[in-house]
Parts: sequence; structure tokens; C-alpha cells
Amino acid sequence: MLERLREECYLNLNPLQTGGRTNAEIRKTALQFVDGYSVCDYCQGVLHLIEKPPICNLVKELVEFLDMDEARLTLGAREGKFIVMHSLLLPGDAIVFDANRHYTTYIAAESVGAKIYEVESIGYPSFEITPEAYRKTFERVIKETGAPPKLALLTHVDGDYGNLTDAKCIGELCKEYGVPFLLNAAYTAGRMGVKGKELGADFLVCSGHKGFGVPGTIGILATTSKWVEKVFRRSSLYDKKEVELLGCTARSGSLACLITALPYIKERVKGWDEEVKKAQWFVEQMEGLGGITQIGARPTQHDLVRLETPILREISKTHRKKGYYLYYELEKRGITGLKPGQTDWFKLSTYGFTWDQVKHLFTAFEEIVKES
Amino acid sequence: MLERLREECYLNLNPLQTGGRTNAEIRKTALQFVDGYSVCDYCQGVLHLIEKPPICNLVKELVEFLDMDEARLTLGAREGKFIVMHSLLLPGDAIVFDANRHYTTYIAAESVGAKIYEVESIGYPSFEITPEAYRKTFERVIKETGAPPKLALLTHVDGDYGNLTDAKCIGELCKEYGVPFLLNAAYTAGRMGVKGKELGADFLVCSGHKGFGVPGTIGILATTSKWVEKVFRRSSLYDKKEVELLGCTARSGSLACLITALPYIKERVKGWDEEVKKAQWFVEQMEGLGGITQIGARPTQHDLVRLETPILREISKTHRKKGYYLYYELEKRGITGLKPGQTDWFKLSTYGFTWDQVKHLFTAFEEIVKES
Repeated sequence: MLERLREECYLNLNPLQTGGRTNAEIRKTALQFVDGYSVCDYCQGVLHLIEKPPICNLVKELVEFLDMDEARLTLGAREGKFIVMHSLLLPGDAIVFDANRHYTTYIAAESVGAKIYEVESIGYPSFEITPEAYRKTFERVIKETGAPPKLALLTHVDGDYGNLTDAKCIGELCKEYGVPFLLNAAYTAGRMGVKGKELGADFLVCSGHKGFGVPGTIGILATTSKWVEKVFRRSSLYDKKEVELLGCTARSGSLACLITALPYIKERVKGWDEEVKKAQWFVEQMEGLGGITQIGARPTQHDLVRLETPILREISKTHRKKGYYLYYELEKRGITGLKPGQTDWFKLSTYGFTWDQVKHLFTAFEEIVKES
Repeated sequence: MLERLREECYLNLNPLQTGGRTNAEIRKTALQFVDGYSVCDYCQGVLHLIEKPPICNLVKELVEFLDMDEARLTLGAREGKFIVMHSLLLPGDAIVFDANRHYTTYIAAESVGAKIYEVESIGYPSFEITPEAYRKTFERVIKETGAPPKLALLTHVDGDYGNLTDAKCIGELCKEYGVPFLLNAAYTAGRMGVKGKELGADFLVCSGHKGFGVPGTIGILATTSKWVEKVFRRSSLYDKKEVELLGCTARSGSLACLITALPYIKERVKGWDEEVKKAQWFVEQMEGLGGITQIGARPTQHDLVRLETPILREISKTHRKKGYYLYYELEKRGITGLKPGQTDWFKLSTYGFTWDQVKHLFTAFEEIVKES
């Protein structure tokens, strides 16, 4: 049998996975709806209008939770980004997005044949993305093409540095230039409260399996009234079916799980400040060991943190297990989620840990550094 | 808590769901890999090359099982069709597909802006799709556009009548006209053995949650060597990532479930003849009641059967529960999956039932007809 006991037996640090950890209740729903097409028992032809299980209520609650006007389920954040780009852009149209974007932002734009303009970060060591850099890029697009870009995307928190960017300010800038604004909230919505319209977002994409504690694949694409007809346009032949969604997207148990998860998610975002404190405390302690530095905006405003760890690389040079020692030393202490062999730097997330677990985590690193 | 006990407490007749029924072992895997991004523990950047869980082996075995050269996971059959169309077609390019196609075939073509040419069936009551009708449509495309279509799609077994079409003959025709041939095997692969290259398919799409007994959403897109570079082309910036897949598709526990399921699927397709016998026996018995006729190719070669049932509609006219009586009478006998209120006609599937269950099913209808 295929086994995986990562969350049961370890503290898992993999930032990709900590926001997608399921709780017991969600696991029960997952088993109830495990069979293929399980959510379609009472379908009348439109996924987001199904009443049993109450998908129609879920969608209404998501709209409110995310402060948008309309929402649909997607198969993930990347699929949501593709849908927006495929709806708005023709080949050759200009798109602007930040250099810290997830690779799928680039690939989705490549897939629709858009002309890509990247907003540079301020570089090492903080890699912050400023509104000013967006303005500069908009001006560049106007100069080169004679018009503003057809779409701008911002990665609300990126997956490399965990930088929380000033979405509101960039949202206002987009409005000033008349550029539709897509906010990728895969690393924020479901962890922290994200209010799309307050941030000026025309489109908001979220990831269920990355940020809402549910099995994948499932995401959310929310938008404002203005864009509903464009992005969720109906088929010329099948009046109920939305073209860009290919009719139905998350036609699986993940959807039932998201229904079960939402009340819990609404509660957990209230604890966000405490999550940030834990991450900040952990970074501070780690830097106190010497030879360890947090990269990215400081102090971190997110649970995903990137550390440069020359001291750990030094140890690897003389350790009999070479670069792999760190992975095994952590594993011995019930910790997993770093890439085996990596010691120069790594990303980790303390999301959802108790203070005791965060302290255990630091103690583990402290021992590894001091014992070596 | 959200409850769903359809498979545990009922004989479920919904054709959409019978091929996606999970067994106990698959359910165990589903729970082990329930967390978001669970299959990504040991990812080196390419989903289909992950060694733990053994996704790379799965893909190799799928290629062999489906008699193709290469395969990738997708998020479902419809997503596979879209990927092929988005790779091969430019707006305005001609695509040919059968009138019995799933609605998503039409919508995927609409989404890429293709010019649609539909191959007519021979109409009521068998609705069969003939190779001759494909030839006629190819000729029509050539006459109107000066060239053969850029893609032809055939629905191997359709979801309306359960007609098994002569894919091999249409595959040969495609070769004759130099038209790439996409076979939608959502209702065949995983139920019956499907040998893609033997049927002349350039592309084969399958549905995990519809035909391989696993949770969704997951599908398979298999192709021949000739098309690998076109359909699975890599990103200009991210050499490992395939553009049309947006990098990774089924990044979820469904993938682990497919690994667990495949040995069982390889066994179950061997029982296909018996599945067809059960469906044929059931149809014969039902027609013996009078006022019930199977629509579609006869005798049926698939578990999905469509029955016209004027006798049941007659009963509904005087029944105090009106059209809903059938649903409730079946439910009383532990049977579910028909649409509540429907009596004129319905689709059902006997897939995976034992002979005793098929007999119970017939007895239920017999009682309902005779007692009313």
C-alpha cells in the first residue's frame, strides 16, 4: 500500500504544503465524497448552482469572504490565472507581472501567447516589489506599444521569499492606468484575510489545496460584476455552460471538502497575526545563532521564510553525510519538508504550528549547529 | 457533517459515476494522500517523473496499457481534449467531431475558436455514427476550406446512448486524409481494454474519475511519438515545464490513487464481456415487460444504456407522486441514480454489479410496472 505519514509523524516545513494540511473533519468529508463525480448527484447542469451538497451557498460565502462580486471554482490558482488570461488577452497583447511571480504565471502567459513585461524587484537581499516599479513598467509598455497593458498581475505573497506586497497601492495604480488587475492570492487567501475589492482587484485567484486546507485540486477565481460576462461567458450552444471553465471544473470531492473547510478557514484567518509572530520569532532566534540570514522583506510578514545558511553549508563540508546531514538530523527530531541535500539556503513555513512546536523546531536547528 | 452514502447503501445506476466507484484499497490511499500537494514530497520539478510515489512508473504502465508512446496526467478528459485542441488549432481552423460527442468537446473547440464541423449520426433510434459520415464530413471541409480538417475527434462510447463506435475504421480514414485523430475514451478506457495505436489514435484522452475508479479530478492524455514535441512543448524559460499542462496538472492525492488503482483496472477490463452480457440481459428483460425500448445501437455493447419507457410515464399520470414515483419506488428497493421526476426515458449503467444485483434491479422494475 502507498504510505504517507508526513503530517501524522512529523512537523512538516514544506511551504507548499502547510496551508493545505487537512483537519479530521475535512478528512471525513473527503472519504464520504471519494468516488468520482460524487458531487454531481443532484446536478441540474451547473456546478456552482448545485444545492446538495450546498455548493451554491459555498460560492456565495466565498464571494463575501473574499470581498468580490462573483466567484467560480477552478482546478487551482494556475488554472484560474490561465482562465483570466485566455479571456482577456489575444496573442501579442501585453501583460505585466512581478519578477517574483510563480512560474505558472509565466507559463500561462506563454500559453496564450501574450507579450510579457516583468516588473523588477529591488533585488538582493529583500527582493521587494514596489508600486513604483509597476508604474515604470506600465510606462514602458505604453512607450513600446502605444497603450497600457491588457492585464497586470501581482503575486500577493510570492513563493520564494514570502514577501507580502502592497496590493492596494498597485491596485490603485492599475485603476489610474485603466489596467485590469489580477491578484494571485495563492499564498494569502485562506491563511490571512484577503479583501479583493478593497485591494482594487478585478480578479482574485486562490488555491484550495495550497491555502484552504483541502485536498486538491481546487481553486477559486473571483471577480467583480464588470468582468462576469467576459470571463464567465456562456457557450453559444449550451446556455448554462461557461466556456472558459469547460463547463465544470472541480467536479470532485475536493469541492465537498471546501464546504466543510470554509467555517474553519474563516476562523483560522483571525489567527494570522500570531502566525506572523511565530515566523518572526523563529527568524530572530535563527539569526541569533550566527551565519544565518533571512532573505526577503524584513521583518517577514508571512509564514514562508527563506534563510541563507552559510553556517550549515560549512558543517556539510566535513560531515560524513555531506549535504544530506541536515535532512537526517531534522528527521531524527521529527521534522521534515526541507529538500534533502540542501544546506546553502532553504525555504520553510511554520504555518499552523503551536508555539511549542516552533520552539522545538528552533531547538532542533540550535542543537544541529552547536553539536557540529 | 456532509454525508454521502450512495455506494454504501444503494445500487447506484448513474452512468457518470459507476466507472468511478472506488474500492477499499483506493480509499485508503486517498486518505494517506489527502493533504494538498501531497504527491509533491519528492518532486524534482516534473510531476510525471516523480519517483516517490512512483508516478514515473505509473506513466510508463499507462502508456503500455493504452498502447501509446507517451502519456501525461491531466485534470480530466475534457482538459485533455482542450490541451490537444489548444496545441493544434488556431482560431478558424476546422475541427470535425461526432454529433454524439460530450458537450465539453464542443466547448473546448469553442474555447480555442475552431470552426466546428459535426458528423451526423444516422438518427433515431440507433443514433449510430458511421465511418461513411466521417468521410462525407471530411469531404465537406475540403470543399469549403480547400484542405482537410486540422483535427478529428471521435467519442469512442458516447454518454447519451452508450454506442461503441468503430474507432479503428475511422482511425484509418483519418490516416487516409492525413487528419490527426483524437479518441475520447472517457467511457471506455478503464472499463474495457483500449489499444490506442491499434485504433489509429494520435491522441487518446481518458478520465480517471469516470473510468479508472479513482477520486477526481484526474485524466490521462496519451499520444504517439510524432506529437510529443507539439503537444507537450516546453516553456521557453522553464525547460522542465510543459506549457499546455501549465507545469503540473493532477498535483493531488488522485494521482496516488491512480497508482493504487492501475493493477485493479488491468484486471477489471478482462471482465468486460461479462459486463456487456449483464447490460444486454437487463435490456432484454426490460423490453420483455412491454412499453420499454432500448435506444442506441442494438444489442448494446456497453454498460450505459438508454431506455425509452412510455409505460412508466403512463403510470406517472395516475400515480399520487406523479413523475417522482419511480425515483421513490426504486429508492425503497435500495436503488438510486436516476433523475428524480424522470419517467419518459432514462439512462442507467449496470457497471460493476453482480448478476444477483442486476437481477434485483430488474425485479425492482418488474414489480413497479406490475404493481402499478
